[in-house]
Amino acid sequence: MDKSHVIQMNGVHGNGVLTAGVRQVSVRGVLDPAKLKSRRQRSWGVRASEMSKNTLNPIRAIVDGMKLTPNPDKPMISLSIGDPTVFGNMPTDDKVLQAMKEAIDSQKYNGYAPSKMQHMIFHPDTQDVILTSGCSQAIELCINVLCNPGDNILVPCPGFSLYKTLAVSLGVQVKLYNLLPEKSWEVDLQHLESLIDSRTACLIVTNPSNPCGSVYSKEHLQNIISVASKHCIPILADEIYGDMVFPDCSFHPMAPLSSDVPILSCGGLAKRWLVPGWRMGWILIHDRNNVFGSEIREGLVKLSQRILGACTIVQGALESIFNNTPHEFYQSTVSFIKANSEICYSALSTVPGLTPVMPSGAMYLMVGIDMDNFPEFQNDVDFTERLVTEQSVFCLPATAFEYPDFFRVVVTVPEDMMMEACARIREFCARHYRPCSTDSNEIDQ
Amino acid sequence: MDKSHVIQMNGVHGNGVLTAGVRQVSVRGVLDPAKLKSRRQRSWGVRASEMSKNTLNPIRAIVDGMKLTPNPDKPMISLSIGDPTVFGNMPTDDKVLQAMKEAIDSQKYNGYAPSKMQHMIFHPDTQDVILTSGCSQAIELCINVLCNPGDNILVPCPGFSLYKTLAVSLGVQVKLYNLLPEKSWEVDLQHLESLIDSRTACLIVTNPSNPCGSVYSKEHLQNIISVASKHCIPILADEIYGDMVFPDCSFHPMAPLSSDVPILSCGGLAKRWLVPGWRMGWILIHDRNNVFGSEIREGLVKLSQRILGACTIVQGALESIFNNTPHEFYQSTVSFIKANSEICYSALSTVPGLTPVMPSGAMYLMVGIDMDNFPEFQNDVDFTERLVTEQSVFCLPATAFEYPDFFRVVVTVPEDMMMEACARIREFCARHYRPCSTDSNEIDQ
Ligand SMILES: Cc1ncc(COP(=O)(O)O)c(C=O)c1O
Ligand SMILES: Cc1ncc(COP(=O)(O)O)c(C=O)c1O
Repeated sequence: MDKSHVIQMNGVHGNGVLTAGVRQVSVRGVLDPAKLKSRRQRSWGVRASEMSKNTLNPIRAIVDGMKLTPNPDKPMISLSIGDPTVFGNMPTDDKVLQAMKEAIDSQKYNGYAPSKMQHMIFHPDTQDVILTSGCSQAIELCINVLCNPGDNILVPCPGFSLYKTLAVSLGVQVKLYNLLPEKSWEVDLQHLESLIDSRTACLIVTNPSNPCGSVYSKEHLQNIISVASKHCIPILADEIYGDMVFPDCSFHPMAPLSSDVPILSCGGLAKRWLVPGWRMGWILIHDRNNVFGSEIREGLVKLSQRILGACTIVQGALESIFNNTPHEFYQSTVSFIKANSEICYSALSTVPGLTPVMPSGAMYLMVGIDMDNFPEFQNDVDFTERLVTEQSVFCLPATAFEYPDFFRVVVTVPEDMMMEACARIREFCARHYRPCSTDSNEIDQ
Repeated sequence: MDKSHVIQMNGVHGNGVLTAGVRQVSVRGVLDPAKLKSRRQRSWGVRASEMSKNTLNPIRAIVDGMKLTPNPDKPMISLSIGDPTVFGNMPTDDKVLQAMKEAIDSQKYNGYAPSKMQHMIFHPDTQDVILTSGCSQAIELCINVLCNPGDNILVPCPGFSLYKTLAVSLGVQVKLYNLLPEKSWEVDLQHLESLIDSRTACLIVTNPSNPCGSVYSKEHLQNIISVASKHCIPILADEIYGDMVFPDCSFHPMAPLSSDVPILSCGGLAKRWLVPGWRMGWILIHDRNNVFGSEIREGLVKLSQRILGACTIVQGALESIFNNTPHEFYQSTVSFIKANSEICYSALSTVPGLTPVMPSGAMYLMVGIDMDNFPEFQNDVDFTERLVTEQSVFCLPATAFEYPDFFRVVVTVPEDMMMEACARIREFCARHYRPCSTDSNEIDQ
């Protein structure tokens, strides 16, 4: 053990100090294991890369920082997880499972698959399809192919946090454009336009929206496209909730509405088919005017070949999933979500201090907190934390979506849970609500 | 159509020229669509990112540059693709398929899964397991967590090209250490050690090897670990071909041999279970001395949560695949590969001008070309291209593995194809072989 080591720090990882020939010293002939260990660690000095350190998940950061201790007298109800499968009340369709088993039995889908595929089973307007490991990888590839470090992307606020996570770890700046809750979360087009500069590489539009549950009209989408067209900004349309809209409303894919703006439409099986774990996503490349040339297409293909995303069994099942899933399955999913949204909306809209916004699709509902009426709480994080402590109901504070003083409710939970949760939220608010004084100073104390 | 547009180049993407207020001009009142189009493209100027441009796949680059026109009189035999499923002669085991179908029927594996899992089903020495989208993503995450731009990694030569593809796109330099064909592709330890500097972030060891088919002895692995230990370099052990070794030989996972060097062992289902398309890989974190601390573990978890890799159905099937795949399946795979390797080795070792190296595992065999004896050809690319033209046999030139004047044979093809291919290679060589003259100038002409 008294053999001397030449020990080198990995310069960039550590602090640049080179420690050569460190000798391990024994204390009275006995090695102190604790000291030995700490010395060893320093000499090794393996540090995680900047990229991994810059990979920040705001939801995790916020949730991990919360004291989530439920009230032992009330069973926990979590309205926080955007996974429709957790309660078992929303299974996927049998035809979807059957398609998978047929793909397995065919033995045709065990080998490596091409990452670019024919567009036949997708919309006929689509020029190319890249299959990916979930919609997340679709978004990652789009950002990776369009952006260089120092560029910026336009991201909705409130919006899905992954855009920022991916961009920031790449050295790409995020500019948040406002959505307007009073206009059913439409884009503040003026604000959007004001953010565009010479380094704006891409505009992300999430429709239907997580966390808002909003669904845009054709006209509004056209207005967004006009802004992009005026400034020549390609669009990443995150349409993972495409077609998950309530019956009185329509989903318009963005691509057919654009004549010049190239649109990378990202989607997947996760939500509409209720199988998020299967990790099947895609990028549909729409580029009617050939703005991208071959470069972006080739870039996407090259990036997608780095690690090859989607499981071939799911790829093999895809056509059958598209063709054979009965229409009633989609309908019943959407009706259920709508019914739950209505329960939640009508229950919470009569709660003093809360302002729910009725969604038109996806599987979420945003609720504004009139913080002035809840002087005990500093912010939405505080509010939702105490809601767990007292009522064992957990909703994600919308700070996770860069939108403080709101919380998001996931409306895929069983109906009775939804009702019970709303009753508890009402009780919680009734207890903590304080009518606003006209003298705001008084409240601040 | 004469509406004027304010057109902005995305500064960093294009050449930095701002073209404002470009007006589309019609020629004699008629728009020339070709001109219009090219103007549009410039005004948009959407360029692929540097990262996508720096994503280079040497195999693709080389193969795409080759004129691969088979001889119409001979059916094509491709010995180039490292996918054991392409010929249908090596199906996976029924138990593996059954495990998948059970996972589907259970309906337990449709939701999002945690990316870190318990180590129970893996080696008991393993501290943490990260499931990934194939071994490729395992390698990507390891490089991403260990390396910053400007660092370097040590990569075997000849070696699997993905290491370089991933590193270079990240701004990480690759230093190639030599393997010695005359010593069954053991590492040239002196050369390896000479490459280490203060920015060396990781040593990659591929055992069993693609493209060599070599399998290292315990002693040799210990010697490699000693070098890493002396210089405090963590090891990425690419063990995707683990246990795919011929019966007279043993596979030693690296991790149990290391007492101090932290080892990230990357593996997956692709090869041993013959299902590369399923995209199931893993990282086993071995860090007996806690050199990594929590930082590298957390970094890996954070990186793996960016896009969530592996399909949950395959995750759900994993334990059953490990436990229920019959031993005979593994044995028969390996026996088949060994038998084919022997056919190929003995056929080609009697061909003047070729020097095959007998493998001990994996599914490849490397063949040296004595280029001096084939004055018609400039290099291995040239040689293998003409082999297609004349004999309709395609082997990957080892320039794709940074190892010119060799070619790689995939030995998972059906036996009769293997024999036929070898016969054609013999014929090809007989035709082009020229005994070496003592005057080398003569040959150069
Ligand atoms: C708006 C949005 N985009 C993308 C995703 C990611 O989808 P996937 O699970 O297919 O990666 C989600 C998941 O919640 C989402 O809400
Ligand atoms: C040495 C080596 N490592 C990793 C991989 C990638 O494995 P996967 O298909 O699981 O991504 C391969 C595939 O050929 C390989 O040869």
